[in-house]
Amino acid sequence: MNVAVTFARHRNRPVETMKTYCVDKSNALYARAKSVIPGGIFGHYGGSVRDGGPKFFSRSEGAHFWDVDGNEYIDYMCAFGPMILGYNHPVVDEAVRAQQRLGHAVSLASPVMVELAERLVEQVTAADWALFGKNGTDATGLAVMIARAATGREKIVRVAGGYHGVAAWMRAGSAGAIPADSAAVLTVAWNDADAFERLINEHGNTIACFIASPYHHPALADSELPANGYWQRIEALCRANGIVLILDDVRAGFRVHLAGSNRAFGFTPDMICFGKAIANGHPLSALVGADALKQTASEVFYTGTQFYSGAPMAAAIATLDELRKFDAIGRMNALGAKLNSGLIDVAKTHGYELIASGVPAMPYYRLANVPRTTHFAWIDECVKRGVYLLGYHNHFLSTAHTEADIKHTLNVADAAFGAVEKPA
Amino acid sequence: MNVAVTFARHRNRPVETMKTYCVDKSNALYARAKSVIPGGIFGHYGGSVRDGGPKFFSRSEGAHFWDVDGNEYIDYMCAFGPMILGYNHPVVDEAVRAQQRLGHAVSLASPVMVELAERLVEQVTAADWALFGKNGTDATGLAVMIARAATGREKIVRVAGGYHGVAAWMRAGSAGAIPADSAAVLTVAWNDADAFERLINEHGNTIACFIASPYHHPALADSELPANGYWQRIEALCRANGIVLILDDVRAGFRVHLAGSNRAFGFTPDMICFGKAIANGHPLSALVGADALKQTASEVFYTGTQFYSGAPMAAAIATLDELRKFDAIGRMNALGAKLNSGLIDVAKTHGYELIASGVPAMPYYRLANVPRTTHFAWIDECVKRGVYLLGYHNHFLSTAHTEADIKHTLNVADAAFGAVEKPA
Repeated sequence: MNVAVTFARHRNRPVETMKTYCVDKSNALYARAKSVIPGGIFGHYGGSVRDGGPKFFSRSEGAHFWDVDGNEYIDYMCAFGPMILGYNHPVVDEAVRAQQRLGHAVSLASPVMVELAERLVEQVTAADWALFGKNGTDATGLAVMIARAATGREKIVRVAGGYHGVAAWMRAGSAGAIPADSAAVLTVAWNDADAFERLINEHGNTIACFIASPYHHPALADSELPANGYWQRIEALCRANGIVLILDDVRAGFRVHLAGSNRAFGFTPDMICFGKAIANGHPLSALVGADALKQTASEVFYTGTQFYSGAPMAAAIATLDELRKFDAIGRMNALGAKLNSGLIDVAKTHGYELIASGVPAMPYYRLANVPRTTHFAWIDECVKRGVYLLGYHNHFLSTAHTEADIKHTLNVADAAFGAVEKPA
Repeated sequence: MNVAVTFARHRNRPVETMKTYCVDKSNALYARAKSVIPGGIFGHYGGSVRDGGPKFFSRSEGAHFWDVDGNEYIDYMCAFGPMILGYNHPVVDEAVRAQQRLGHAVSLASPVMVELAERLVEQVTAADWALFGKNGTDATGLAVMIARAATGREKIVRVAGGYHGVAAWMRAGSAGAIPADSAAVLTVAWNDADAFERLINEHGNTIACFIASPYHHPALADSELPANGYWQRIEALCRANGIVLILDDVRAGFRVHLAGSNRAFGFTPDMICFGKAIANGHPLSALVGADALKQTASEVFYTGTQFYSGAPMAAAIATLDELRKFDAIGRMNALGAKLNSGLIDVAKTHGYELIASGVPAMPYYRLANVPRTTHFAWIDECVKRGVYLLGYHNHFLSTAHTEADIKHTLNVADAAFGAVEKPA
């Protein structure tokens, strides 16, 4: 496999918990954080904090990062997705520095915005145009507004348990949300096209859009791939009823298919939301769509101070270039498949059944038939041994992960199982 | 005046329209843009496009940028505010590069997040805590959610014509918005505390928050400073009625007072939204607030893929450091005052009355008693001569602007008035 860039290989580390493993510096910094930041660490990063685990990184390289106590980790979270080519990728970062030398936010747009839009239109099958933001929420929020403007309808259909960011319509029941924010949002179960058809029959011509990720990757539950024919029925129902089909490819984008994850599942959305991996960790999101929505998209005012900076756009072009230089999708998924089967085997030797779900490049792990505390205990033991996993979220492979990383991870997982107290 | 960093001085340029002035490359790129981006250039950058004007920059330095045709401009838009120390400020950008060498988006937060939160709490009078986002919309959206969660009330009071980003509650009447988005939003006229009191009497204990900028700086209209006693009455009404007082300091922040623009107007908000200038063009926004709201702030889930990157936070610390090294506020406002009085004088010699409103560091210009087309024609003639102004928005001074820039600008303005056809 022709991997364009080779990162420095990590040192061999002992599999057993190092005598020196401690997170004292993380904990001290976390205490300081709590005095000046609500919750200490907020948002989804706050949700990943574990008592005995690391809280702050000090540096990162390739598929690895180091915490502030100096512990090194093979990272299977990839910053929750953005890192896809390896941390501090030299080609991407040089593209960023070159653009930054020209300017950051400037009073006019940068030519690189046009180049990136052209690139996305060329690469992403469903894209005739592109708009840019910073976070996935910017793209999903804009997508539903365009759908509402295009159809003159208000209702949004989404999949129960799906996550499309923190825009008001996504916040039903959360602190700070009001009922009106999501009064026009309907939910259906994943893989249930019949339920979608029933909703259409019930709500007539009031549904503006259907939005879902290419496959179901909720938190705290197994990922679920689309059933045979599911997306084709969803697409047909949308077409027959004038409903805009929005693919939220923020999380899975560029780990399933470089031309849009829909290509792997045989359907064509009207708009696709991209974010996370699009610029290998530089802040960018994008909404792309079909010509039929272009005029409407130009009429929906949506903007942000930081939407126009060229450097993250240059990072995106470099990232997309690098991903095309070899079979990046194949590599990440092959590594993920090897990790999955290895972990399943290791678990079995300790009497556990490990379930790996989702696409192999984004595996969600669950120990079956044990209390959730046992699953988290195993995750914690892996983290202590230098393999960074989370207990409640899908993981991510990158092209910087190596066979050696996988092999070491399996040894760590084995030792971690040995350290977990077996449930009665 | 001890200015820490001196940028390369621009070359002396002729005041008359250069024979070579053309925007052919901008126009060609704009045509390409239109084929792949709805509207060609979207959002507020799209709104600033003028037929004969530049559309894309090629590089920037200090208070100047160059368009893709090679035309140089003294820039009084400062990227709509973010640029405050000069483009490509060496100290800020080195802080960015140093943090970027450690990592971009990584699976854990960066220690610099804690350092920046501590710094804001130390520097900003009303701040006991800080949270971070990318754009002003992230901060204003989070602020109103915290206010709703803290009060258990739904209604938001804002000032008519004020701008607080593109969150759903701000979008009344715009394409893609639905009535429910802003059904709980009430508006009052600027500087009308009586109207706010009437709203309170009318709506009882249903008002969660009052949100406004420190002074009124709408688009397409003169800026208005607070009347004597206005903010004190607003603050007293909020306190007496359990209404959360939110200051949207995204646009004016760090050009009025380094400890929060409220300090210049003698009041204390419960939360302040910062963005734009906080990191000299690197993508960051912040919400800071009082201890009384800290617990609630920790309960409102708000997040984004790109919220945790250290580099823009390092940029913010460096920017705040630089702004404290000398009297930055005094310098920007003194330069703005000189520009204002000079432009007023120049206008008078051509028989025009030029109105300059707002704080001097953020002047809004309007030619009185002439059609708007005449005002725009004068702006266009200034742009052609290398002074970048907009006809419908306040401008921004930076610490990188020089007395020479001001002097040259006045000469350009004079020539521009001479080139404008006098209205009958």
